[in-house]
Amino acid sequence: MAFGWIDEQAELRRRAGLVRTLRPRSAESPLLDLASNDYLGLARHPEVTEGAERAARTWGGGATGSRLVTGTTELHAELEQALADYCGFEAALVFSSGYAANLAAVTALAPHGSLIVSDAGNHASLIDGCRLARGTTQVVAHSDPEAVGKTLYTHTGEAIVVSDTVFSVDGDAAPLAEYAEVCRERGAGLVVDDAHGLGVLGDGGRGAPHAAGLAGADDVVVTVTLSKSLGSQGGAVLGPARVIQHLVNTARTFIFDTGLAPASAGAALAALRLLRREPERAARARAVARELHTRLTAAGLEAVRPDAAVVSVRAPSPEEAVQWAAECRAAGLAVGCFRPPSVPDSISRLRLTARADLSEAEIERAVRVIGETRP
Amino acid sequence: MAFGWIDEQAELRRRAGLVRTLRPRSAESPLLDLASNDYLGLARHPEVTEGAERAARTWGGGATGSRLVTGTTELHAELEQALADYCGFEAALVFSSGYAANLAAVTALAPHGSLIVSDAGNHASLIDGCRLARGTTQVVAHSDPEAVGKTLYTHTGEAIVVSDTVFSVDGDAAPLAEYAEVCRERGAGLVVDDAHGLGVLGDGGRGAPHAAGLAGADDVVVTVTLSKSLGSQGGAVLGPARVIQHLVNTARTFIFDTGLAPASAGAALAALRLLRREPERAARARAVARELHTRLTAAGLEAVRPDAAVVSVRAPSPEEAVQWAAECRAAGLAVGCFRPPSVPDSISRLRLTARADLSEAEIERAVRVIGETRP
Repeated sequence: MAFGWIDEQAELRRRAGLVRTLRPRSAESPLLDLASNDYLGLARHPEVTEGAERAARTWGGGATGSRLVTGTTELHAELEQALADYCGFEAALVFSSGYAANLAAVTALAPHGSLIVSDAGNHASLIDGCRLARGTTQVVAHSDPEAVGKTLYTHTGEAIVVSDTVFSVDGDAAPLAEYAEVCRERGAGLVVDDAHGLGVLGDGGRGAPHAAGLAGADDVVVTVTLSKSLGSQGGAVLGPARVIQHLVNTARTFIFDTGLAPASAGAALAALRLLRREPERAARARAVARELHTRLTAAGLEAVRPDAAVVSVRAPSPEEAVQWAAECRAAGLAVGCFRPPSVPDSISRLRLTARADLSEAEIERAVRVIGETRP
Repeated sequence: MAFGWIDEQAELRRRAGLVRTLRPRSAESPLLDLASNDYLGLARHPEVTEGAERAARTWGGGATGSRLVTGTTELHAELEQALADYCGFEAALVFSSGYAANLAAVTALAPHGSLIVSDAGNHASLIDGCRLARGTTQVVAHSDPEAVGKTLYTHTGEAIVVSDTVFSVDGDAAPLAEYAEVCRERGAGLVVDDAHGLGVLGDGGRGAPHAAGLAGADDVVVTVTLSKSLGSQGGAVLGPARVIQHLVNTARTFIFDTGLAPASAGAALAALRLLRREPERAARARAVARELHTRLTAAGLEAVRPDAAVVSVRAPSPEEAVQWAAECRAAGLAVGCFRPPSVPDSISRLRLTARADLSEAEIERAVRVIGETRP
């Protein structure tokens, strides 16, 4: 029978304690949220939701077509200009998701015969970009510029180095400046995903590449999401104008996808304006993360020192991680629970996100609940 | 220099007349729209935009996380139930785009050692799904059930057949019933993309699989978009509940992507309610397409007989297609212009979409402009 093998796989997952189930949340959740990627607390900010509403009223529920046909509105162009300006790049191109932006950037910039050097900790979307690209991928040790440099020396043609700026599981930052240096030695391009850096790192949240002095460089391409710090949906590629034009002409997830919904473009644009007006939100998210880490460590938990707004706490096993997260939830606290196959190693963890709008009392409560429910 | 080869490629595109440029449109375009995929004219329907606005107000600008963490709201669950119910399937799973839905369905249902039989006319997102899947892909002649059957006979393990239901370039329908028959003979699964069928084909727009008597079958999986007839953004996979659970647990573009923005979920849900209340919209879109085809053919143009709401008109060359579309635009008519590499063959065409809300006078005007500007 068609799809019969699915039942066997489901049984194996059940036995391994790895079954995932969707848990729809209500609009007014009673839980304290340390699980979302709403780092700046903007997803429900009235200016952001009003930006979405106004855009839907003005432009409609959808973009109505692919970007090269009817799916580019003046709102998309305005958002692209605002993103490029804020992050310090020549041009930007908006996609329906960060996933699509990553597939586009990697496939369009790694032609046949080229080398892709990919950090072992990269996000699934970068990995899928490598798999779809015509170039040949070499995976190198996590955050190891020397390994990147050595691998670049094995190849004489075009090459790119691909990395997250902040790794989503442990929240550690990539050695961006060192990556850029080894890339320049070899004339390679650097393609980095700043999904967890935008809004959190750099001056006023301009992102990790801006903080590393790489904004606007002609050999650096950055992807971002609109769905984390900007509280919306979508992704973007930032870089030199000629790279952006190349993507417009060649990137399949750009050409063959419907444009981002106007409401999402409007929400992201409103969030970007808020960030410009209130740049202290970025520093506050980082401070909350550091405080969470300090208190968790003081409580004897094994937490990774945060470089941005993600704080990862190790769990002994997948089953215990699930149980731990469930007990946090029962105590009124929502935390992320990452376990195989969503982790690059086999280690399960609780994943906490440090929202800029968490109060001192909320931080204290979160740490207390996590400590009290530890396996 | 990094990315230096991009300039050479840009120069080659320029010489070949294949440069693509974004053309942002205003909110109140003076053009008559026969270019968008807004088949039912719902993208700007007040109930649809109000659905988007209400959702943004209630739920925020974004879903705030991946679907398995915080990105599933009760609104997502409601939309999934409504899609499954309307199209006649046991369950549905919503994605941030139809592209992501196609990548998910094909990769999750074609494990290592399996065979994927893929129609030569398939959309880029299905092709990329085949490229990412662990199974082995065999591309077969366009809309040729005999070729599909023969290819299935070359393989003894798991197999799926992958096809658009309505091909986006020429608007022709796939032989779905025949595909299902050859699949059943061999115990293969059928995975079809109904992006251009939902809202247009079948009883009240329930889609091509529903029209072919395949809705709810345990060996059929359907992907749809929310961005065409439903006037929003996003995609969905419809199928047996155990297939949907399998996707929740294994599909990378589901697990590692932020959930669809509430505004887009709200807009799609409102459109679905409208479609249920006004099922005649689907038949009207088909009638408009037939009328466009009849009149264009009577005017001596080479148009493909439409099976749904897309009418394709052949152009002599890419340059002439671009020129033709530009002259239409100058005369107040927006038409799509498809040319290499966005076409499966080397033939350029104007692509017209038959919106259900086009008036007789608008149809007449469109045909007159296309005839007067022909190369």
